[in-house]
Amino acid sequence: MKPRITLITLGVDDLEKSLRFYRDGLGLPTDGIIGQEFEYGSVVFFDLEKGMRLALWPRKSLAHDSGLPVTARSATEFTLAHNVSSEAEVDKVMREAEKAGAVIVKKAQATFYGGYAGYFADPDGHLWEVAWNPQWPG
Amino acid sequence: MKPRITLITLGVDDLEKSLRFYRDGLGLPTDGIIGQEFEYGSVVFFDLEKGMRLALWPRKSLAHDSGLPVTARSATEFTLAHNVSSEAEVDKVMREAEKAGAVIVKKAQATFYGGYAGYFADPDGHLWEVAWNPQWPG
Repeated sequence: MKPRITLITLGVDDLEKSLRFYRDGLGLPTDGIIGQEFEYGSVVFFDLEKGMRLALWPRKSLAHDSGLPVTARSATEFTLAHNVSSEAEVDKVMREAEKAGAVIVKKAQATFYGGYAGYFADPDGHLWEVAWNPQWPG
Repeated sequence: MKPRITLITLGVDDLEKSLRFYRDGLGLPTDGIIGQEFEYGSVVFFDLEKGMRLALWPRKSLAHDSGLPVTARSATEFTLAHNVSSEAEVDKVMREAEKAGAVIVKKAQATFYGGYAGYFADPDGHLWEVAWNPQWPG
């Protein structure tokens, strides 16, 4: 298949709460909740850079649509990385996330690969890494 | 923060097995396992379209780096969508995934929003949705 990811959908427990976190707290652009006319259809989309999209969808809807059972949260399933262009910008984004209500999982610090990064968790425990990597200019 | 996701990292149980699935089975481009010189550093990167990256990293490494415990798998945490430009291409990618050893979680079929999509799971149970959405040309 083509090396393509069009959309990342996060399973959430409380769509309104997650919308507030990402839209009001982190400032991501969105039209809010759409799709309410469909059972299990309520969803939030964010337009990201370079044509990527991020979606929030209730875990129950995701389970219904895929036919899988809802299982307990698991924070080590995946992380989303937000790379920036300096250590100072890492600190700024981490502060913004904390103010938005994120759990600071790991304070920003030097990384084993020579960069600088921290982790925060969204209201559902989904991990974000905010990173400055000198090999990957932001 | 900027609406930016630079990298999606999947927690995996068996890095070699996951590498074979994504590189040999699905054909994603990669230099293979790198970072072995660091404890918990072994990782696989795939370069995707539009500058996105996908990484495979052992769940144990992700847990070590973030300070979180490894927990049981949970398939409803997130999905990655691979949008294509026709129903026929959905079928083609689903066949390719099955041949690569993916579990077909939901056979491709008409969706509630008027498209056509199926789900498969990678060796770690991570969900991919292969979709044709008439509102999102592939």
